[in-house]
Amino acid sequence: MSSAILLISCPDRAGLVATITDFIFRHNGNILHLDQHVDAEQDIFFMRVAWDLTHFALGRHVIAEAFAPIAQRFQMDWQLRFDDERQKMVIFVGKESHALYDILARWQARELPVDIPAILSNHPELGGVAEQFGLPFRVFPMHKETKAQAEREQLAYLETIRPDFIVLAKYMQILTADFVRHYPYRIINIHHSFLPAFVGAKPYHQAAARGVKIIGATSHYVTADLDAGPIIEQDVVRVTHKDSVADLVRRGKDLEKTVLSRAIYYHVQHRILVYNNKTVVFA
Amino acid sequence: MSSAILLISCPDRAGLVATITDFIFRHNGNILHLDQHVDAEQDIFFMRVAWDLTHFALGRHVIAEAFAPIAQRFQMDWQLRFDDERQKMVIFVGKESHALYDILARWQARELPVDIPAILSNHPELGGVAEQFGLPFRVFPMHKETKAQAEREQLAYLETIRPDFIVLAKYMQILTADFVRHYPYRIINIHHSFLPAFVGAKPYHQAAARGVKIIGATSHYVTADLDAGPIIEQDVVRVTHKDSVADLVRRGKDLEKTVLSRAIYYHVQHRILVYNNKTVVFA
Amino acid sequence: MSSAILLISCPDRAGLVATITDFIFRHNGNILHLDQHVDAEQDIFFMRVAWDLTHFALGRHVIAEAFAPIAQRFQMDWQLRFDDERQKMVIFVGKESHALYDILARWQARELPVDIPAILSNHPELGGVAEQFGLPFRVFPMHKETKAQAEREQLAYLETIRPDFIVLAKYMQILTADFVRHYPYRIINIHHSFLPAFVGAKPYHQAAARGVKIIGATSHYVTADLDAGPIIEQDVVRVTHKDSVADLVRRGKDLEKTVLSRAIYYHVQHRILVYNNKTVVFA
Amino acid sequence: MSSAILLISCPDRAGLVATITDFIFRHNGNILHLDQHVDAEQDIFFMRVAWDLTHFALGRHVIAEAFAPIAQRFQMDWQLRFDDERQKMVIFVGKESHALYDILARWQARELPVDIPAILSNHPELGGVAEQFGLPFRVFPMHKETKAQAEREQLAYLETIRPDFIVLAKYMQILTADFVRHYPYRIINIHHSFLPAFVGAKPYHQAAARGVKIIGATSHYVTADLDAGPIIEQDVVRVTHKDSVADLVRRGKDLEKTVLSRAIYYHVQHRILVYNNKTVVFA
Repeated sequence: MSSAILLISCPDRAGLVATITDFIFRHNGNILHLDQHVDAEQDIFFMRVAWDLTHFALGRHVIAEAFAPIAQRFQMDWQLRFDDERQKMVIFVGKESHALYDILARWQARELPVDIPAILSNHPELGGVAEQFGLPFRVFPMHKETKAQAEREQLAYLETIRPDFIVLAKYMQILTADFVRHYPYRIINIHHSFLPAFVGAKPYHQAAARGVKIIGATSHYVTADLDAGPIIEQDVVRVTHKDSVADLVRRGKDLEKTVLSRAIYYHVQHRILVYNNKTVVFA
Repeated sequence: MSSAILLISCPDRAGLVATITDFIFRHNGNILHLDQHVDAEQDIFFMRVAWDLTHFALGRHVIAEAFAPIAQRFQMDWQLRFDDERQKMVIFVGKESHALYDILARWQARELPVDIPAILSNHPELGGVAEQFGLPFRVFPMHKETKAQAEREQLAYLETIRPDFIVLAKYMQILTADFVRHYPYRIINIHHSFLPAFVGAKPYHQAAARGVKIIGATSHYVTADLDAGPIIEQDVVRVTHKDSVADLVRRGKDLEKTVLSRAIYYHVQHRILVYNNKTVVFA
Repeated sequence: MSSAILLISCPDRAGLVATITDFIFRHNGNILHLDQHVDAEQDIFFMRVAWDLTHFALGRHVIAEAFAPIAQRFQMDWQLRFDDERQKMVIFVGKESHALYDILARWQARELPVDIPAILSNHPELGGVAEQFGLPFRVFPMHKETKAQAEREQLAYLETIRPDFIVLAKYMQILTADFVRHYPYRIINIHHSFLPAFVGAKPYHQAAARGVKIIGATSHYVTADLDAGPIIEQDVVRVTHKDSVADLVRRGKDLEKTVLSRAIYYHVQHRILVYNNKTVVFA
Repeated sequence: MSSAILLISCPDRAGLVATITDFIFRHNGNILHLDQHVDAEQDIFFMRVAWDLTHFALGRHVIAEAFAPIAQRFQMDWQLRFDDERQKMVIFVGKESHALYDILARWQARELPVDIPAILSNHPELGGVAEQFGLPFRVFPMHKETKAQAEREQLAYLETIRPDFIVLAKYMQILTADFVRHYPYRIINIHHSFLPAFVGAKPYHQAAARGVKIIGATSHYVTADLDAGPIIEQDVVRVTHKDSVADLVRRGKDLEKTVLSRAIYYHVQHRILVYNNKTVVFA
C-alpha cells in the first residue's frame, strides 16, 4: 500500500477542509490521517492529509494537475508527496561521533527510509565510522581564509548528488548565508542548548556559568541567522550543581542525538510546515 | 462567539470527513478545530470538530435533527455539545485538601467554566475549605456496614442536583459498581500511582518498597473495576533513594492535583472519547 | 526531636569533612543527613550537615561559639540553623491568584512550616484570597512617579515585621536595587520562562513568537539585575503549534506555582548555598 | 591522578562518617566526592567516598587491610575500588541492534572505560555489528529443550573470560536462576516498560491495550524473579492515542538504549549499592 500526502498552508476560509476532503473522496481515496490547524491570530490554515492510493482514481502523476485549481482558488502554498519515494540525505559531521552513530544505526535497522549518498566533514576523524557502514566519506577542510572556497567545493560536490536534505550532525561550522540559500528549510541542525538560551559557541559552558537546573538540545532548520531558524524539536534533562561541564557535555549528547533523530524522522515523513520562522509539526 | 462541538466515533469508511465537513460548510459554519484519528487495528474512526455558530444557518436546537441522517448512515456514536453550556460538577473529597484547593482556585479564577453545586465527603475535615469558597459541603459518613445505605443517600442527594459529572478529588472510598452505573464515564478519579503499577491501597508505600526511580499519578474514568477504568491523563516525577515515603507523598501531591486538573479540563472541553476501556484525548 | 543544620562553604582542603564530622561526633551528635560538594574548577567546598540534638552535649546557644575556631581555621562562610525555628515569610502578589493559592493551601495543610505575617500587593484584587485564609493584606499602589516612595513605605512596613524572607508570587513589579539590598538572597521570585531565555516582559508572547516546543518557569533569588539572579529551580512542559499564547499562559501557571513552591521548600529547609551567582541545592 | 572508592553499608551508628573520613585524612587522602544516606526506617547507613591517591600514605594493596578493623567494628558490608581499574563487560544480545549500537558507540568514543571481550547471542543477526567494531561474537542457540545445556555452555565460555559484569542489551531470553546465581547483582538488564507495570512478554502491546499516556523503560539487576530485580534507572516518554504499537516500539527504543547506558555508567563508576532488592544510586 502506498499513500499520498498533501501539505497545505493558506489564508483561513470556510470550506477548506470540506473542499480538500471532497477532492480525495470523489476520487475514491480513503483518508488515513488528517491533521489541521488554524493560527487564529494570523488567520492561517495548515493541513496535512494522507490517503491510501490503492483505489484512488487518479494516477500519481496527474494528482497535482487535478488539485491545482483548488489550490489556486484558496491561494494555497502546497506540496504533494508520496510515502514510498525514498529521499537522499547527506550528513555533515565534525569530530564527535555520537549523533552520526545514532543516525546510521537507525538507517541500518531500516528505521529511517532514506538513502545516504555521502557523509561530509571538515575533519578526517569520523571516516572510520562511515567505513563501518560502507558509506562514502568526503573531507572538505575548513579554514577561515579558505572557507568561501571550501563551501563552493561542497556545493559543487552536492550538485552531483542532488540531496533532498542535509543533516548537520554536530558539524561545528557555521554555514554562510549563501550556502543556506541553496537548501532552504532543507538543512537540519542540532544545537546543544535549549534555544533561544545559549546561542552560539560553547553552550554547555554558558549553561554551567549561568547555573541552570535543566539543559536542553534543539533541532532546527538552518537559516542565515545563527541558531535562529525554525525550531523543529527540543528536549531537556535535569542537572544539578554536581554536574561539571564535562558531565553536561556527556549528558547533553544523549539529548542531541535523540532530538536530532526525531527531527529527521518528522522531516522524512513530511510532517513539518514552516511559516513565520516557526514550524507546525504534525507529530 | 459560541461554537458547536461534534464528538463522533464509528466504523471507518471512506468519505467520513468529507461528509461531516460538508454538512458544516453547507450550513455556513466555519471550522475552528478539527481533529480525527483512525484506530487502524480496530478500524474505528474518531473525530472532534468545533465550528463557529455566528453565521451558522441552523439554530442550535435543530442541528442534531439535521445531522441525524448522516449519523445513522455511518452508524455513528455521537454527541453534540455547545461550548457555552455550563456544566455542573460535584466534587467528592476525603481528608486531604491539596486537590480540592487546586480545583477551587482554578474555578475561582474562572479557569474552569463549571458550576459546583456541592462538595461531598465522608469526613467533616474539609468543610472549612468549602466554606472559604462559599460552597455547600455535605458529609455522608461511610462505614463498612452502612456503606450501601450511605451510597443510596448520596445518590438520592445527587438526584436533586443532577450533576453532569463527578470528580473524586482524593476521595479515599471505593465506589460500588451500582453507584458507578449511574454515572458512566462521568466520574473522574485521581489515583496516586503510575497505573497500572501499584493498583489499590497505599501506592506510595508500594513504590518505596519496589524501589522505583520515578513515581506517577493517573486520572481515569471510574468503572466497576478498581483503578482499571480508561486512563485520561498521567504524569510522573523522578525520585531517588533519598525520598522517604513521606517525601513521595509530598511530591506526589503536586502530580495528583496537576494531573486531575488536566483531566477535568479535557472533560469539560468535550475532548475525550472512550472506547475499549481506553480514551482518545484530542488535546 | 530537634536537629541542627550547618551550611558551609570555604576553600577546599583535605580534612574538612573529617574535622566537621568529628566536631559533631565528639559532642555526641548523630548525623541525620550529610551532603557535600566540591566545585573542582573553583576549588570551593560546600557542605550541609544535619544532626540530632537529643543527646548533643552542647546547648543550642553555645554551638556557634564552639564551632567558631574550626570555621576560622578553614575560612568558612557558614550558617547554623535549627529545624524547629519557624521563619517569617512575607508574600508579594499582583493580580493573578494561582501561585498565592498554591502557597497558602500548602501553608494551611502544614506542609510549609512558616508564619505569614503579611501579604503585600500593588493592587487590591487578591485581598479576598488573603481574607479567605485570615491573613493581613496590605496594598501599596505603584506608579512610575511614586515608585521610590512606595518602596520606602514597603520597607518601613517590612521593618515592623522583620521577615526572614520574601516571596514574589507573580508580583509583576521590578524591585529597585535599593530594595533588593535590604534582603540579599532572601527574596525568591518566579519568572515565567526557562531562564535565561525570554528575560523581561511577556515571556509567553516571546516563546510563542520564537516557536519553542517546550516552555518553562524559573525560580531564582532576586538581585539587582533583572531575571539574572541565582537560579534555584526550573521546570518545563512540552507545547505544540496548537498552543496559543493563552494556552501557554494557562499551562505555564501550573509550572510557575510548582516551581515556586519547590524553591520555597528548599529555602525554608536551609538547603540552598549561593556562590558566583549560582546555587548549590542539597535536594 | 588515580582515586580510590569505598562503598559501604552497615547498621547506622553515631561516628560513622567521622571515623571513615578520619581514616582517609590521617593517611593524607583528599576527599573528591562523598555521598551518604541513611534509610531511617531500616536504620541502615550507606556511603560512597572517593579520594585522591596522589599523596595517600598507603599503597593501594594495603588499604583494605588497614581499613578492615574499622569495617569490622561497624559490621560493614564494603567494597574498595580504584577508578583506573578497567572492567570486563560481556554483552548479550538478541536480534535488535539499537541498544548494542548505543553501547558500542559510547565504548568507541571512550565514554565507557571498559573492555568488551565478547558479545553473545542466541541468534546470528547481530554478528555484523560486532564485526563493525572488531569484537568477538559468539552464538549460543537457545531452544526450549536445550536451554539448560546452552546455558551451561555459556557459563563455561564465560568462565574463560571472567567478566566483571554482563549486560543484557535486549537479549530476549529469560536466564535461569542457576545462571543468575553465578553473577549476583552483576547482570544488568533493560526491560521495555515502566516496571512494575507490564512485567514479562510484549510490554508495548500491554501498554497499548491498557491505554497508558506514558511509556517507560527500566534497567535493573537480574535476579531469579522475572523483571523483579533491583531497579537501577528508569525513564519515560509521553504517548497518545495516535501511537500504534509500532510507534510505541520505535519510541521506546530510544528510552531503552538511554536508560540501559545510564545504568551501565553508574555500575562502571561503582555508584550503586543494593539492599532489600532496591538500589542506592549515588548519581
